[in-house]
Amino acid sequence: MPDRLSRKPSISSAGTPAPAQRADARNNRARLLRAAREAYALDGTTVPSSAIARRAGLGAATLYRHFPTRDALISAAFSEQLGRCVATVDEALEDDDPWRGLRTVLVEVCRMQAEDRGFSAAFIAEFPDAPGLRRERARAEAGLARLVRRAKDAGQLREDFDSSDITLLLLANNGVLRDSPAASMAASRRLLAYFLQSCRPTENGTPLPAPAPLRLDDLYRAPGRTG
Amino acid sequence: MPDRLSRKPSISSAGTPAPAQRADARNNRARLLRAAREAYALDGTTVPSSAIARRAGLGAATLYRHFPTRDALISAAFSEQLGRCVATVDEALEDDDPWRGLRTVLVEVCRMQAEDRGFSAAFIAEFPDAPGLRRERARAEAGLARLVRRAKDAGQLREDFDSSDITLLLLANNGVLRDSPAASMAASRRLLAYFLQSCRPTENGTPLPAPAPLRLDDLYRAPGRTG
Repeated sequence: MPDRLSRKPSISSAGTPAPAQRADARNNRARLLRAAREAYALDGTTVPSSAIARRAGLGAATLYRHFPTRDALISAAFSEQLGRCVATVDEALEDDDPWRGLRTVLVEVCRMQAEDRGFSAAFIAEFPDAPGLRRERARAEAGLARLVRRAKDAGQLREDFDSSDITLLLLANNGVLRDSPAASMAASRRLLAYFLQSCRPTENGTPLPAPAPLRLDDLYRAPGRTG
Repeated sequence: MPDRLSRKPSISSAGTPAPAQRADARNNRARLLRAAREAYALDGTTVPSSAIARRAGLGAATLYRHFPTRDALISAAFSEQLGRCVATVDEALEDDDPWRGLRTVLVEVCRMQAEDRGFSAAFIAEFPDAPGLRRERARAEAGLARLVRRAKDAGQLREDFDSSDITLLLLANNGVLRDSPAASMAASRRLLAYFLQSCRPTENGTPLPAPAPLRLDDLYRAPGRTG
């Protein structure tokens, strides 16, 4: 199976493309990825590829040459964000204060989502052509679970916190985002502050109702957006 | 200005319509309202009128005869919910425990929104043909502000709670709704439980960041949904 994420443009009729052709191809690839992130940020990952090509000012054929499948485009567009996510989780696991580690990750993922509405797509894309990205994501999810466990074991996180609550938070955070980045950040910060305060264990606190049946791939299954 | 919300169908060429015609018109009106609520619940109030007529199994001309403007249709579709909202606020103001009163209202509006995603449209529709509905809504908003004030004065609500936090909650709640009513209710209840716990004043609690610049009419200005 060809590596569809390779940076090398597939130019079928030539053995080795000329340098100018290679530079063009790189430039087009970058324009397509930027357009994809912008489009996902506005409308989610269900936006048609033709709309992404149009936004990039390129033809659909050029898009398909670089990214033969929607997943290939999504994974390329989000590999950087996924990498930042993994790095944040890894750093948090090094923090000797488990609650501070978990809180830092939640702050960071909410911030990334507020900056770029397409961000959470990285958690549901199937990445069929990028096993490395699938592994990265699995590592981030396992790291999150360990952060939750550590904070509970340290008595810093309420016992009835459920890992689905991270998905719940990201869905809620997505709901409060506005058109302007400043308004999005303000709403996201305020919501997260409310959420974090309730995550702490309290004496005679009210128990939460049952966790919602949410998984990370619910993040892009918002009703009325995708089928 | 004609009363476009009148239940009387406008049959231009006849003085008094025959009983069968009147029954038909009433039946069509009910079908249109039900279709409108369903469509708003799925896709928000920006759904085209033609789609609502199709869902009702009626022609666009019939829809326009009953509801010449989008606002007329929205206000008719939501007058019942607005009425329930007003009644809930009025009852809460009678509660001699201010916190219980406020909490009941928040529980109830989140539940109404979880049952019907089109619900919050009632807060932004302009109701140009229904000054009664505008007055009802203004009464609900004033009542909410009084509930917040009362709970703060009683020391039952954190002082830095801002009335925009009710909009923030409804936006977040909208974000967690799923395709199935049961999953929506579970997610909504869990989110609200987190939120309510942080609303209570605490000794040495962390102050919240600045309120988000939100107004109730932000509820249907979600980025990527309306222009």
